Amino acid sequence: MDLKVYLKEQCACIDKALDRFLPKETELPHSIHKAMRYSVFAGGKRVRPILMLAACQAVGGDYGRAIPAACAMEMIHTYSLIHDDLPAMDDDDFRRGNPTNHKVFGEAIAILAGDALLTEAFKLISDPRFAGGCESSGLLAVIHEIATCAGSYGMVGGQVIDMESEGRHDIDLATVQYIHTHKTGALIKASVVAGALLAGAKGEHLTAITRYGEAAGLAFQIADDILDIEGTTEEIGKDAGSDQARGKATYPAVMGLAAAKEEAKSMMDEALRALEIFGAEAEPLREIARYIVQRRN
Amino acid sequence: MDLKVYLKEQCACIDKALDRFLPKETELPHSIHKAMRYSVFAGGKRVRPILMLAACQAVGGDYGRAIPAACAMEMIHTYSLIHDDLPAMDDDDFRRGNPTNHKVFGEAIAILAGDALLTEAFKLISDPRFAGGCESSGLLAVIHEIATCAGSYGMVGGQVIDMESEGRHDIDLATVQYIHTHKTGALIKASVVAGALLAGAKGEHLTAITRYGEAAGLAFQIADDILDIEGTTEEIGKDAGSDQARGKATYPAVMGLAAAKEEAKSMMDEALRALEIFGAEAEPLREIARYIVQRRN
Repeated sequence: MDLKVYLKEQCACIDKALDRFLPKETELPHSIHKAMRYSVFAGGKRVRPILMLAACQAVGGDYGRAIPAACAMEMIHTYSLIHDDLPAMDDDDFRRGNPTNHKVFGEAIAILAGDALLTEAFKLISDPRFAGGCESSGLLAVIHEIATCAGSYGMVGGQVIDMESEGRHDIDLATVQYIHTHKTGALIKASVVAGALLAGAKGEHLTAITRYGEAAGLAFQIADDILDIEGTTEEIGKDAGSDQARGKATYPAVMGLAAAKEEAKSMMDEALRALEIFGAEAEPLREIARYIVQRRN
Repeated sequence: MDLKVYLKEQCACIDKALDRFLPKETELPHSIHKAMRYSVFAGGKRVRPILMLAACQAVGGDYGRAIPAACAMEMIHTYSLIHDDLPAMDDDDFRRGNPTNHKVFGEAIAILAGDALLTEAFKLISDPRFAGGCESSGLLAVIHEIATCAGSYGMVGGQVIDMESEGRHDIDLATVQYIHTHKTGALIKASVVAGALLAGAKGEHLTAITRYGEAAGLAFQIADDILDIEGTTEEIGKDAGSDQARGKATYPAVMGLAAAKEEAKSMMDEALRALEIFGAEAEPLREIARYIVQRRN
């Protein structure tokens, strides 16, 4: 398979669905809907939704039925970026080369746009018009998985520990691991688990997909840490070396660049091993795991 | 029935359940769980959860099965207060006589505590351990109702228009109505509808409860506007007259105090009329409607 073509097609499919599912700018209140759409369509690569569709397919499901939940996942990812960028948090003026949400719409609307995207995500998954043959119990399980991974035991928890670790010089590997598996890893794991659940996966199939998600999620974040050092500003869409400048807790910072590269590779291998029980349907998931570690942006 | 005793008992029941459902302060990350609990246990009257239990009972259900969703509703209400109080929004230092969340924990944790409470709400309703005999399709409908009423078409939308209207002198009744029915009304309506859905209500029963929720929600907010003028600082737990001082869009501001009182009374009557098809099981809902308009805090 040609991964580039695959990613482009799935990305277009997600973008089209997001445009359909998000409130229109013409609907009241215009400002919030404009702000929500601004950040959702600010050039995201749709990694999480594409992983959800690929996981649904890997366990033998029709990926079409995972499209609403995949869009919900991207809304949650986007809300987290909007709130992370706020002055009280990371205080970033640019993301992917564009002014951040609060620079364009002001802090109040940025906070509310994040809140509304998070809420809209759960509204979308529970919308009977888009259930597409999924059983209610399956959709409920998807909501529970996503909410668990997005909340204080997951993504938000990772963000808290990340913030509290910034600038400290005594951060150990266990703390960096906690931050990475929670802040980024949790949503990536939830994406593939949700995709599998929507295909009705159970038992060893669900276990395998979960293992894949955990390993791929960690690989993704270690690769990000490495890119921050080795990538150019153009490649990564933010200032190269900004993690280092901020004293962020990263894998290269606690174990050195070479060992971090080994660890990313080892996580990719683990992700691939988890998929051994699947056949050709899991090829996109395999290719994505390789891409995660080798990408330059 | 003695409403005071009833409210006290139901409030204690909700408080106990919230304590059980909320993450413990001893769990990582401690700071966020402490912040979440601080605002949830800051003296709320539990109006929304009590309404949910009462609505469940009014349509013939066992209110016990609505307790998780009722707690989820209180988490959503609390998140909205934490975010409303932020410096970028209303910039309030005190709520119900206590320092606001960001004054105690800082802005970053306050933003994240709100995010986590909103997420926790959907996690709780979808938790299979607490389904208590409710059907998955019913729980999914509850999630959809709550998310719809909490998002940009509901509570968040009301907050946006409220903010954008502040200090303007050309606010008309339609705008104040939009703000009230969305910012406060939507969650109150969602509370009673969710309670009825959890009891399996359909058809005219569900319609009647919805009508009650809409009328009671509007009555509640108009009564709040009136209290801001007539209540003492001690009674209302914030500076009396603060809406006026801020140029907030209120019913008394657009139609005068006397007409606003008439309107609150008329909404209460409408709420009571909607309950005519129910028997004695709806008595708590009726008493609450009367209390909403007559309360002094």
